[in-house]
Amino acid sequence: MMFTTADRDLAEDIFTCVATQTATPDGGVSRPSYGLGETIAWRIVAEAAIDLGLRAGPDSAGNLVITREDGPLPPGSTWVGSHLDSVPRGGNYDGLAGVVAALLVVAKARDEKCVLPLVGLGLRGEESAWFGVPYLGSKAIFGKLDRQVLDRRRRTPDAEPLGAYMELLGIKPTRLIEGPIVDASQVAEFWELHIEQGPVLAAKGKPVGVVTGIRGNARAPNARVTGVAGHSGTTPHDLRQDAVVRFVEVMTKLEARRQTLAELGDDLVFTCGVVGTDPKRHSITTIADEVRFALDVRSLRDHHARGFLGYAESLGVDLGEVVETAAAELPPPMWQRARRACEQLKVDHEVMPSGAGHDAAVFQQAGVPSGMIFVRNEHGSHNPAEAMSTDDFLLGCEVLWRTITEGS
Amino acid sequence: MMFTTADRDLAEDIFTCVATQTATPDGGVSRPSYGLGETIAWRIVAEAAIDLGLRAGPDSAGNLVITREDGPLPPGSTWVGSHLDSVPRGGNYDGLAGVVAALLVVAKARDEKCVLPLVGLGLRGEESAWFGVPYLGSKAIFGKLDRQVLDRRRRTPDAEPLGAYMELLGIKPTRLIEGPIVDASQVAEFWELHIEQGPVLAAKGKPVGVVTGIRGNARAPNARVTGVAGHSGTTPHDLRQDAVVRFVEVMTKLEARRQTLAELGDDLVFTCGVVGTDPKRHSITTIADEVRFALDVRSLRDHHARGFLGYAESLGVDLGEVVETAAAELPPPMWQRARRACEQLKVDHEVMPSGAGHDAAVFQQAGVPSGMIFVRNEHGSHNPAEAMSTDDFLLGCEVLWRTITEGS
Repeated sequence: MMFTTADRDLAEDIFTCVATQTATPDGGVSRPSYGLGETIAWRIVAEAAIDLGLRAGPDSAGNLVITREDGPLPPGSTWVGSHLDSVPRGGNYDGLAGVVAALLVVAKARDEKCVLPLVGLGLRGEESAWFGVPYLGSKAIFGKLDRQVLDRRRRTPDAEPLGAYMELLGIKPTRLIEGPIVDASQVAEFWELHIEQGPVLAAKGKPVGVVTGIRGNARAPNARVTGVAGHSGTTPHDLRQDAVVRFVEVMTKLEARRQTLAELGDDLVFTCGVVGTDPKRHSITTIADEVRFALDVRSLRDHHARGFLGYAESLGVDLGEVVETAAAELPPPMWQRARRACEQLKVDHEVMPSGAGHDAAVFQQAGVPSGMIFVRNEHGSHNPAEAMSTDDFLLGCEVLWRTITEGS
Repeated sequence: MMFTTADRDLAEDIFTCVATQTATPDGGVSRPSYGLGETIAWRIVAEAAIDLGLRAGPDSAGNLVITREDGPLPPGSTWVGSHLDSVPRGGNYDGLAGVVAALLVVAKARDEKCVLPLVGLGLRGEESAWFGVPYLGSKAIFGKLDRQVLDRRRRTPDAEPLGAYMELLGIKPTRLIEGPIVDASQVAEFWELHIEQGPVLAAKGKPVGVVTGIRGNARAPNARVTGVAGHSGTTPHDLRQDAVVRFVEVMTKLEARRQTLAELGDDLVFTCGVVGTDPKRHSITTIADEVRFALDVRSLRDHHARGFLGYAESLGVDLGEVVETAAAELPPPMWQRARRACEQLKVDHEVMPSGAGHDAAVFQQAGVPSGMIFVRNEHGSHNPAEAMSTDDFLLGCEVLWRTITEGS
């Protein structure tokens, strides 16, 4: 093991301390973006860094920056990190694992007198649950926040706009929309360790994932199919135009299409998580004249996600508004390095896309070559039952360290 | 034509007069069970009967009874009729057509000195839309009302219990729950002419239907299938337990089963008119862990409807509460007579079940051999667009007359 028992103890202490200090009465943790829980996590990691003899402090967007020495960030450095916030009543490791990994890696570089310039990051505001917009901290670094976002109110009772919470932290919000804090060309690469938020690694019995890209999505939140209302007892099936039957047919065809695409090797998942007839006019004895539903299609290739919604439209679905988020393909040289590190360390690993969004996508889209390493996690994410073992976490940190230092 | 131009004019006058006097401001008619609109229709038909020299008056349940002479109802008589009420904002012919047909038939029997003892009926309270219970007038005739029904409030603002509306009409409600008004053995048979409430006759271009039975139903108002919630981006399809996908699979299998049963000649329709994920916890990016839906299965054979719900249960559907209403098969000698009358009159007709419920089911279940004749109707029923032509109506009356008199 490259990391010591002291490293293990430190990581477990930080995880326990942050979980305790940000716990909610009804289970799980709550670390609101630019709010108290996130700031508690920020402070606990920052104090641990200082206790290790490192430097820790905020950038202009309030993100935690960990370095070996004082002074300006070294140009051409490798940045490592993840986010400090969580969803409401979320799990402890989503984000925090990658921040602790960054701390361990920076400390190890100092201990080993590694010449690679390294910056550890604890990013704020990654979760869209609080202000409706994700990646606030990483977008601020690259000047990608627009003025409107400062006026967005937090989705909690009696909540204030984002700008007010930033000012409480001593941040000047208007500075963030004037331009980047950091010139992207000064950052050589970005690496993020993160728990896998899906079940793939647990199902395959592998502790580590090597991420090839971050899926984008195409969404139709208000899709619908229509029919003609009729009496459930008096209308023969061959004279019906039943919207529920149409919905079932559409979903069956979409699933067949998805399977065909999977056989062709295309990366694509689709979900209908919301469906319903209209409570104002549906009844058990009336053939439904409308079914409304939501479609979420994700793919590493944006045109595949869009194309899938187009296929739904060709089946007679009225898509309504379509909202798209671009995918971020991570550069093959980046994830191939991580894969090689796994092989050298004999760590059983899965090469896989990320279905969820991550700060690494913001870095990649800003022009910083980025890579991600996933750590196995049980029971999904965004819920209190989320679970990562310290053994898996340390394996992930070893892969991260080997990947970073091999590239230097 | 057996019926004259005067009969046609009379029928059209009654239809027009009742439609005008019971119209609602937003279209259609409204004739509440044991309420004003129903009473207006009662009065208009009763006055028309008296103008024709017939006798008209209420029975103890407030139903309109039309006879040729004063005095007690003749034993062993043939009863003919339908209902006077309508659903809220309903169509003009649902029920009223059969009452006007009864008036024409009793008048014709008088004119032709037909020896058959005949009683015309305008029944009250057939629609369950008002008090939640159907067939109030016909059930009262046979002592089938229970005490609780008198306390049911009308489903309109500031409404009173059924008993209060009955008292306004001079009815003694408690009398109705003490026992039958009429000994069923005194009624030789019952015939009801009614518009078809489905699209079959219009689709087949036939003016008349001969009804073989009245479908019963088995309903699961709160059925559900379950799954496991998950992130829509991070959960691969082969690791999902998606409740919406389960619903689609169940519905596909139920439809296949229905088609198989139809090929075997079984009478059965099924409808899912209500479906939905839980608005309190569904989201476009979450795999649904539950879909709730309603199933309405109708068949002339009660065990077929029940069996279909049992098949749904075998597919993993949690049915919840199951509510059953018994079917009423009409005696083959009854509908065969009606079919023969159509053939003799060269009236293009369809032999068919009734998907909706009718007062004839109450007569049949009370032991009175009952038959029904449907008249073609456009645009479904229980809505203002309901449409029956007078030509079709008079053809139905001729079939009704021929059927009744052929049997005597």
